[in-house]
Amino acid sequence: MSAPDRVADTPVFFLAGGTGISAETLGNLMLNQFPTVRFLRRKIPFITTVEVARQVVAEVDAAMTSSVTPLVFSTVADEEVRTELQKTRCAFIDLFGSHLDAIERVLHVNASHNRAGLHGLGDPRRYEQRMKAVEFAMEHDDGQSLRNLPQAELILIAPSRCGKTPTSMYLALQHGIKVANYPLVEEDFRASDLPRPIRPYADRCFGLISTAARLSQVRGERRPGSTYASLAQCSYELRRAEALYHQHRIPSINSASMSVEEMAAVIMQTRRMNNLA
Amino acid sequence: MSAPDRVADTPVFFLAGGTGISAETLGNLMLNQFPTVRFLRRKIPFITTVEVARQVVAEVDAAMTSSVTPLVFSTVADEEVRTELQKTRCAFIDLFGSHLDAIERVLHVNASHNRAGLHGLGDPRRYEQRMKAVEFAMEHDDGQSLRNLPQAELILIAPSRCGKTPTSMYLALQHGIKVANYPLVEEDFRASDLPRPIRPYADRCFGLISTAARLSQVRGERRPGSTYASLAQCSYELRRAEALYHQHRIPSINSASMSVEEMAAVIMQTRRMNNLA
Repeated sequence: MSAPDRVADTPVFFLAGGTGISAETLGNLMLNQFPTVRFLRRKIPFITTVEVARQVVAEVDAAMTSSVTPLVFSTVADEEVRTELQKTRCAFIDLFGSHLDAIERVLHVNASHNRAGLHGLGDPRRYEQRMKAVEFAMEHDDGQSLRNLPQAELILIAPSRCGKTPTSMYLALQHGIKVANYPLVEEDFRASDLPRPIRPYADRCFGLISTAARLSQVRGERRPGSTYASLAQCSYELRRAEALYHQHRIPSINSASMSVEEMAAVIMQTRRMNNLA
Repeated sequence: MSAPDRVADTPVFFLAGGTGISAETLGNLMLNQFPTVRFLRRKIPFITTVEVARQVVAEVDAAMTSSVTPLVFSTVADEEVRTELQKTRCAFIDLFGSHLDAIERVLHVNASHNRAGLHGLGDPRRYEQRMKAVEFAMEHDDGQSLRNLPQAELILIAPSRCGKTPTSMYLALQHGIKVANYPLVEEDFRASDLPRPIRPYADRCFGLISTAARLSQVRGERRPGSTYASLAQCSYELRRAEALYHQHRIPSINSASMSVEEMAAVIMQTRRMNNLA
């Protein structure tokens, strides 16, 4: 569709013994440091045998031209597989192996250098906790059910369309936190108390706000031209929500300028939730 | 609660300029290579100034004892902040900076070495796509709404409690894929056709199964002692589901032995969904 580029895009490969999520995430963080370069990304997960590694090397090497050297990010841990991958003529960036030696020296323990811990469910209890948290967040989305609200570790509150749902899902799925979310509506804005169902749990609440412009845009996509989406209404609701947060000492963040990942990190830091143990 | 250990746990710090997700994920991948060592993990996100870095160094150095050297994983990109962090006496594992030089040489471009791209929403279009996908997945969870089914890029099908919901959420939230999920119920098991609502979209379907033992356990937590949770019923449903997948050439995976991350990677690879562009 677009005009052909003068300079060829640089091929980038993310190789992994597991899902490739880490290779991709960390690799992309690094690529973001080169905003003027265009990359053509490809992920190759589950490289678990030397035979597969050999095929992968052939494949990435085929992307090499006289003018462009592809970048290869790898989080493969298995030593034999890694040795095979390192035969590539592309630029091989070993995100994993290169640091293991340093860690071995500090711990005075040899790394197992295998795929254990890269596969399967990881810590089964922690995985179970995450899956149960997703279930909880689904049931307690948008105030749908209040049945198990006392079990919520965190309650996100906000006017409609400020980002409660994706933030809840992220906290549940990634961090195993039991999150409920509760919408602030017209009658809540007229009251000075917190809505009755969440009143006993102010210390677990966290507020989201947005900017009026952003909120109006998001609401407009759902109900174009409505009062609900009008700048005046959005501005009013946000002002009232902020007053409510302030009055009840509920910490809050602005979802207009932050990603769900960032909001999750800030919320957990503010509420001192440590899910790493 | 537990008896005190002879050997002190090794403190581990994940430091980052952003949310710390990459530092944590990749650091943990490496720590998994040392299954005999016990770690005490702590994440310190949003280290964006030299002053904060100085405080962080004081904090991590305080965890150092005569017998234990803490591990510090860092994805901080900002050069001044990194230089400050490197003053720590702990083992400093720079997941980021150590590779940037290599990439610069390959690309013949200098890294911006700043926090751009580590903050904010990243690519706004891609972020928007992910948030919209979460909304879609919520609306189309468990066959609740069929309204926009034609827009689904992927339809997960399975008997109840095989992991459709968390897998859908993960694919939506992390990869921006519009996923619907649809439950296979008694009447579907007696038929040889696919359920009517999804019949036109067999080429977008992906099946989940589980083991009878695992499914029975998960269902038992919800409805203990029920026929629904019985081994016989679970076994029957899984057999029928597998037959249905086979008959309609719907690829499938077993959720009993895989994490949502792994299932997502396999599904995307099988369906050749590339969300990296």
